[in-house]
Amino acid sequence: MKRAARQMGELALIEGIRRASEARPSGRVRLGIGDDCAILRPRAGHEVLVTTDFCLEGRHFRRDWQTPESAGHRCLARGLSDLAAMGAEPLAAFLSLALPAGAPRSWTDGFFRGLQRLADEFSVPLAGGDTAESPSEHILADIVLVGSAPTGKALRRSTARAGDLLYVTGSLGGAAAELLTLASVPNNAIAPGREGEHPSLFPAPRLTAGAALLRRRMATACIDISDGLSTDLKHLCDASKVSADIESALLPLHPLAAGRLELALHGGEDYELLFAAKPSARVPKRLGGVAVTRIGRLLPRTSPVIALSDTQGRRTPLRAGGWEHLVR
Amino acid sequence: MKRAARQMGELALIEGIRRASEARPSGRVRLGIGDDCAILRPRAGHEVLVTTDFCLEGRHFRRDWQTPESAGHRCLARGLSDLAAMGAEPLAAFLSLALPAGAPRSWTDGFFRGLQRLADEFSVPLAGGDTAESPSEHILADIVLVGSAPTGKALRRSTARAGDLLYVTGSLGGAAAELLTLASVPNNAIAPGREGEHPSLFPAPRLTAGAALLRRRMATACIDISDGLSTDLKHLCDASKVSADIESALLPLHPLAAGRLELALHGGEDYELLFAAKPSARVPKRLGGVAVTRIGRLLPRTSPVIALSDTQGRRTPLRAGGWEHLVR
Repeated sequence: MKRAARQMGELALIEGIRRASEARPSGRVRLGIGDDCAILRPRAGHEVLVTTDFCLEGRHFRRDWQTPESAGHRCLARGLSDLAAMGAEPLAAFLSLALPAGAPRSWTDGFFRGLQRLADEFSVPLAGGDTAESPSEHILADIVLVGSAPTGKALRRSTARAGDLLYVTGSLGGAAAELLTLASVPNNAIAPGREGEHPSLFPAPRLTAGAALLRRRMATACIDISDGLSTDLKHLCDASKVSADIESALLPLHPLAAGRLELALHGGEDYELLFAAKPSARVPKRLGGVAVTRIGRLLPRTSPVIALSDTQGRRTPLRAGGWEHLVR
Repeated sequence: MKRAARQMGELALIEGIRRASEARPSGRVRLGIGDDCAILRPRAGHEVLVTTDFCLEGRHFRRDWQTPESAGHRCLARGLSDLAAMGAEPLAAFLSLALPAGAPRSWTDGFFRGLQRLADEFSVPLAGGDTAESPSEHILADIVLVGSAPTGKALRRSTARAGDLLYVTGSLGGAAAELLTLASVPNNAIAPGREGEHPSLFPAPRLTAGAALLRRRMATACIDISDGLSTDLKHLCDASKVSADIESALLPLHPLAAGRLELALHGGEDYELLFAAKPSARVPKRLGGVAVTRIGRLLPRTSPVIALSDTQGRRTPLRAGGWEHLVR
């Protein structure tokens, strides 16, 4: 990491990260903040997984909709969800954070509190990053997650087969429903609350469920639902060269999205896992502390790529609509 | 990586990265762009090194001073230099790039051309990243480099001892001198040119020299000079709990900085390596294709932390001044 050291009390920020990092030593982080690079030591026989995600104010979060704790939580959750989708174990997180000159210290503190609370929950050390003064009034973050998985065993989105059944963890549409509410009642100061209570503000990355899928060799493919079921299922179908049939009556709607099927289909930010498994696989009702629901099946590649079946068996094409990010 | 797929022709950008990535397969990148994470397979017996660096328009580069090729080159060079400082071998790079709505395609193309040319020079695959629309008019980049080094062998800044001699690679002050020129003659369209010809616009990361230091077990400590000799030497001294005596007559000034000692002492962005070695070590005159110059020695920790000795043997304290980044 490079630093322009005299900018904006940046050293204080780095010190904060360093303390947070040092207070949580990890056998896998051999060297954290304080040198040119961090040094990680993955388990023998493991490969290394890397994902990076922007969290830009005005694009991925808004200070008038989300508390700093929520912004910090969501920033880390984005990366952790990518690791979860491949069944990986987190090794370390790296945060690049650029603050505008006038950003209140209380915001930064809250952001780190939210990020650190989630990091603690999954024992993910913050092992480095970068800081700078933002060139605009926007807070800019980029989160990097490094994880590991047994060599050749990471779950992919490209390995599903026609005939496999489709499953999702948790429930769908809750994040979109909550975002719609936030858009109408801005600047709520909302605490994490119970599991699933604030699916948009404090999404739960499904690391335990993903790891269980990998360990039990149960999934033929997996992806996380960050852009909405229809969009991410399309990604899985395209990568695996298959089509999909979803049964609308089976979709597990979040209570906040009750009666609003479109939120479950196209609402993003749910961070649930979508996975495929052979019909012979004994997929349990719960996995890693979260419900698992069968929602459809994969078919040989045809058009439409995704069809939605209602209770009368009528099939309509489902366009990969995704979610027009509300936060922009 | 997460994507808001319909933003700004972002898919075209991702496709560009993907093609660049796929065109350059690597045995160490098992899975590149196209899934939730990239998968890297480090050599057996190696640890993993990670560094992240912001490259923000208005902070780290300016469109009216640097060509897009230079901005792309410098972005990657920042991360590669961190790996070089620890003697690591690059495994893969990850680029997060946010473009304002009106950013011309020619700029993006030039940026990738500059980045890719340097990546090719050191056989570094671009294995992933993220894209977004910038929330302001600024181009925002964050570069992540992942490398590896034999377990326990990475060079650190904290392991020097009093009595060690101090060396630098290449020459100093050139980047600062060139930046001063650019500030007075903006918007030069300058090509990479010969080695060292454009030390600020096209800095050369010292990966080969760093790897040679590690392989020959020659350095007791190492750091790269990104913030200026005085600042980065202070970092090395603080981390190793020693002091340093620099002989001003020994400093290898870049031709552009001839007669301007202050640029060699405090000018940043040189991306040379500063390392310590025992007096008994046979440090060659050249290492990894670049000159190596002895510039002083380390002493037991005292005050001042760094002293500058002139040819008459007069010692004056050297304040860690660093470089007030010109590009802001």
